[in-house]
Amino acid sequence: MRTIVGGVTAARGFRASGVRAGIKQQGSDLALVLSDSPAKAAAVFTTNQIQAAPVMWSGRIVRKKGNVQAVVVNSGNANACTGGIGLEHAARMSDGIATRVGVDADAVLVASTGVIGVVLPIEKIVDSMDELVKAADNGLNAGTAAAEAIMTTDTFAKECAVVVQVGKDVVTIGGMSKGSGMIHPNMATMLGFITTDASISQAMLDEALAEAVIDTFNMISVDGDTSTNDMVVLLANGQAENPTITAKDEHYQAFYEGLHAVCMSLAKQIVQDGEGATKLIEVRLQSAKSKEQARALIKSIITSNLVKTAFFGEDPNWGRLLAAMGYAGVPFDASRVRIRFVSDRGEVLLMDESEPFPFDEHLAKRVLSARDIQVLIDLNEGVSEAVGWGCDLSYEYVRINGEYRT
Amino acid sequence: MRTIVGGVTAARGFRASGVRAGIKQQGSDLALVLSDSPAKAAAVFTTNQIQAAPVMWSGRIVRKKGNVQAVVVNSGNANACTGGIGLEHAARMSDGIATRVGVDADAVLVASTGVIGVVLPIEKIVDSMDELVKAADNGLNAGTAAAEAIMTTDTFAKECAVVVQVGKDVVTIGGMSKGSGMIHPNMATMLGFITTDASISQAMLDEALAEAVIDTFNMISVDGDTSTNDMVVLLANGQAENPTITAKDEHYQAFYEGLHAVCMSLAKQIVQDGEGATKLIEVRLQSAKSKEQARALIKSIITSNLVKTAFFGEDPNWGRLLAAMGYAGVPFDASRVRIRFVSDRGEVLLMDESEPFPFDEHLAKRVLSARDIQVLIDLNEGVSEAVGWGCDLSYEYVRINGEYRT
Repeated sequence: MRTIVGGVTAARGFRASGVRAGIKQQGSDLALVLSDSPAKAAAVFTTNQIQAAPVMWSGRIVRKKGNVQAVVVNSGNANACTGGIGLEHAARMSDGIATRVGVDADAVLVASTGVIGVVLPIEKIVDSMDELVKAADNGLNAGTAAAEAIMTTDTFAKECAVVVQVGKDVVTIGGMSKGSGMIHPNMATMLGFITTDASISQAMLDEALAEAVIDTFNMISVDGDTSTNDMVVLLANGQAENPTITAKDEHYQAFYEGLHAVCMSLAKQIVQDGEGATKLIEVRLQSAKSKEQARALIKSIITSNLVKTAFFGEDPNWGRLLAAMGYAGVPFDASRVRIRFVSDRGEVLLMDESEPFPFDEHLAKRVLSARDIQVLIDLNEGVSEAVGWGCDLSYEYVRINGEYRT
Repeated sequence: MRTIVGGVTAARGFRASGVRAGIKQQGSDLALVLSDSPAKAAAVFTTNQIQAAPVMWSGRIVRKKGNVQAVVVNSGNANACTGGIGLEHAARMSDGIATRVGVDADAVLVASTGVIGVVLPIEKIVDSMDELVKAADNGLNAGTAAAEAIMTTDTFAKECAVVVQVGKDVVTIGGMSKGSGMIHPNMATMLGFITTDASISQAMLDEALAEAVIDTFNMISVDGDTSTNDMVVLLANGQAENPTITAKDEHYQAFYEGLHAVCMSLAKQIVQDGEGATKLIEVRLQSAKSKEQARALIKSIITSNLVKTAFFGEDPNWGRLLAAMGYAGVPFDASRVRIRFVSDRGEVLLMDESEPFPFDEHLAKRVLSARDIQVLIDLNEGVSEAVGWGCDLSYEYVRINGEYRT
């Protein structure tokens, strides 16, 4: 596997574009990802009971397991909690692209992110579609234009691409994502769009994506609020012409390794760019009884406001980590826990086997002054391990999300 | 039932005191509640797996169901995650008071709140015990002195008392609580201590407290982090000399009404004084299928950072409320939901039957500019109802909890 420069246009046969429709106050806000040939699609959607119209629309298409050829995404408005008119608008977004590129409406997925509960300015979107389709290009810049058009309060475009050797063939996997943010402060939405030229069966594609999100997109948290609009879509158009992957063999493994790397990179970029974040916190939980136990403990830590504010304050307040583990709802033996903080500025042991370790406060503060912090927790109960990523909670988070919408 | 001025010394036969032991940088930090005669005790403790030493100590005593005569509480240090020495210190706190007031060590409950993972300055505490016991008095000021000594970053002392008619006798119930705060920023702890002169059986006392906390102390949230030190203790010394309450009859109901009112007042005072809080948010969920459904939805709303920052920003962002309900893990019919915001400045309807209501933004902003906001949510699914209380998330919360401990 090799990382290359690129995003959704890295794989053969994919074009993309991003234009300004005028939904946001400024910047591009309408993106298109287009496959030149029919592609298989796998997707995961938000677990929130309240699902935005585009989630309902795209979910229906993905469950049909037919061919998909495009994804149209707008930022600036989530088209969520918008009632019957919202569903109609999602359909019109799909139809508009389908007509212009000459495919069936059920071959066009729709995604939205932005303010909730405000009716989508659908005419602005439809009016921009000719320009959007015309701009679609397979170059690097076109991929970046799409990645920029899906941003809300994101401060940088998130892209990633890799090539993997699948037997004798080279398969490319590339993607883009967006994280927490909005122009009119509102629900943070996580979106990920991944394209590949791999030839792979629907069953293997579904399985690969479902597996890859577990310890990538599903192990990050910015603020613990699950959006109504989250989705990760993976399109595979087979243009690499590799023998179709139909079983969990070595070819699947090679493809999976690449897909996992792309998901991981896109997920970590979201946390790095978390609203108001000044630090990326990686929590690695080792020697756990099971991966499930480890993941539950990590999630409780990275969503705790007290843990997040302590990191913002560069305070080696390990008691808050242990307390967050304590209310995670999964049992562990507190008497065997060891906690260390590591960064490029050093390493400090804070707690060992339930006894506070008399650590050097100055060293601890130096370790925590780095931007990237690793928290190493040993449970000393088993052999499983998991990793998750979070960010700190800063004044800026409160400002971004507390500002009045207008 | 009648509310009276007072706290833990309101009921007959209870004395209290608060002195400075020097655990905190300033202010009183050691409190005592003392019954002149043996009392029955009921208590509820944190559900956090990580339990501070005083929680272990007091839990053991309460489970024995023997007589209790005193509670000693320190602020400034949680005596949590302090290993074997922590348990020894909790025992020394209990012993020290027991010796001085002439009771068994198992008649003295212990509670602590403050920084986690730092060994308790036990000598300072023991050295202050003579003064603490000597100061114990049954006056109003003594109750307030105790309520002040258990404060950490609380900005006001929290007290409440009521009298209820139990048959021919007057029973008094009074209490004090503390909320989120610390001198050295750390885990917020909720402590509540309630005294009554009611004569009541152990079984009825246990049941009354367990029932009263469900929709009072357990329906508030400041930041979603469950402390290692939470406890609510209820002492009943029988000095009202009412015929002992031994069944859920009208006398029990009268007593329960008073206890519930005291719990409610103490709980609401905690949220009003939440760290950095500028607003008290009451969420009333009506026409739910069950109380459990209503409570789960309310808790998800009042712990959502996005909801809390929206209230701080006085932003009528009802989509965030609905999204928080969506990930609460309990089913509801989103198509029937109605959401209103009410305050002393007006009322505004934001959403009705899944359709955004075209509300007046200026009116909404005026309603939200009040300090006390009521959120009324109609599920239109059944006849159950529940209420919960939260506060907003402000810059001040981040400052308090992000500041370095030293």
